[in-house]
Amino acid sequence: MKTYLDCYPCLLGQALKVARLSGADETQQQVVVNRALDTLKEVSPSSTPPEIADLIYHIVREEGGAADLFQKAKEAATRQALALYPRLKALVAEADDPLERAVRLAIAGNIIDLTSAKEYDLWDTVERVLDQPFAVEDGAAFREALASAEVVLYLGDNAGETVFDRVLIETLDLPVTYAVKGGPIVNDATMEDATAAGLDEVAEVVSTGSDSLGTILDHCSDDFRRRYDEAQVIIAKGQSNYETLSSEGERIFFLLRTKCPVIAQDVGVPADSIVLKQGEKQG
Amino acid sequence: MKTYLDCYPCLLGQALKVARLSGADETQQQVVVNRALDTLKEVSPSSTPPEIADLIYHIVREEGGAADLFQKAKEAATRQALALYPRLKALVAEADDPLERAVRLAIAGNIIDLTSAKEYDLWDTVERVLDQPFAVEDGAAFREALASAEVVLYLGDNAGETVFDRVLIETLDLPVTYAVKGGPIVNDATMEDATAAGLDEVAEVVSTGSDSLGTILDHCSDDFRRRYDEAQVIIAKGQSNYETLSSEGERIFFLLRTKCPVIAQDVGVPADSIVLKQGEKQG
Repeated sequence: MKTYLDCYPCLLGQALKVARLSGADETQQQVVVNRALDTLKEVSPSSTPPEIADLIYHIVREEGGAADLFQKAKEAATRQALALYPRLKALVAEADDPLERAVRLAIAGNIIDLTSAKEYDLWDTVERVLDQPFAVEDGAAFREALASAEVVLYLGDNAGETVFDRVLIETLDLPVTYAVKGGPIVNDATMEDATAAGLDEVAEVVSTGSDSLGTILDHCSDDFRRRYDEAQVIIAKGQSNYETLSSEGERIFFLLRTKCPVIAQDVGVPADSIVLKQGEKQG
Repeated sequence: MKTYLDCYPCLLGQALKVARLSGADETQQQVVVNRALDTLKEVSPSSTPPEIADLIYHIVREEGGAADLFQKAKEAATRQALALYPRLKALVAEADDPLERAVRLAIAGNIIDLTSAKEYDLWDTVERVLDQPFAVEDGAAFREALASAEVVLYLGDNAGETVFDRVLIETLDLPVTYAVKGGPIVNDATMEDATAAGLDEVAEVVSTGSDSLGTILDHCSDDFRRRYDEAQVIIAKGQSNYETLSSEGERIFFLLRTKCPVIAQDVGVPADSIVLKQGEKQG
């Protein structure tokens, strides 16, 4: 997805928000905002929003943000989600269509997002998403792709959401490679967070080799790139993976909630929709 | 009020919003955003937000925004408010404390603000504000100041809100000079808008000589500056007048709704409060 003009004020606001969350003082915040203004001025309009966010988060780190102040929030999110795990499993077990139910739950878990503006109640969200119609539902293509796949590459998103991903992976009944970030970036799941969610028991957990949001292929390791290139089916969770991979072909299936109105518009759905969307053919 | 760091993303968002409202095409919008980034980088942090907004709105005008695309919206707001005028007058007539009621109504009218994010229903707001406790209520000082004043300088804000101002002016029983903007700037009232609201029947309507938001004294005409310097009591409506005059002394009384969370914090009250606040002594 390209960066829309609406993304500029939002990215500037994120720079300030993340600087504050990282413990930057007022002077450091001012420097971060000034450098973010420069960055926004210089970036190519063809960059995806996570590519610009990556530059901005690096500024925050350089200007005095602590390395990983999100770690405690991530651990809390994982604990909170693990407490729901038995109820999530029961919801899938009693469903007429367990795969459809597990996909819904994986999308419900995508509400866990510290950089999102809204507060949330996790179980309320689970219950709401159980009844919410899909705004895009490429389920038939998804099932067809899974039927012929030998292994699935699953691109994770946030810590805590990982537990919901685990429930979907357990429902897939296929070998899964689960990709996490190579280093801390806001509340995105790293190897440690995935292990805390028990993902190592149900999938091969690998690192993208990048600590950028989403999946910026140019930032990823050779090992990850090989796995990515060879994957027959890719499940990509969350907005950032959509933003970075939306034009990367039909083997990718995006599972997300459209929390951002600009992303919603790019997908062609209302804000706060739930989406299972097959990627578009590569131009 | 100084410009807080939170104002930067908001001002950038306003640049884009006003460019779109003014009919700028995508290319013009991009130029506006780029120039706004430069402006935000260069401005002195001691500028007030309306001083920066003024620079940004000038960019919009230069880059292709039409002169006054808000005129129709302003006319509609005035018509809508005029339709309520008899009910507003009745509310004041039946009040135990007509001045207190008229002040409340003048603040209720401050909901009319096209650059504000929220949609509004005017009469609902009137009714809500009738019962809402003041977050700041310098009413005693206000009455005292009025008791010894020979003339009141009233700094207007938006078109439509003018009708509510008229009701307060009619309640004051003092000669009033009503100041409007010297030229179109978003939906702020100009001479034409004030006349449409009937303010010329109850006050001497004068121009600030400036088409900036709020009252940036350096931008105002000599004639207005003289009136301003001589005024014993000044009623200043809305957020922008607070932003530009908050440190200009105790003869100013600010009547506003704190629609912006940053302004609310500067005033020291929750967002969406109603405020009758005496200005602080000049430092």
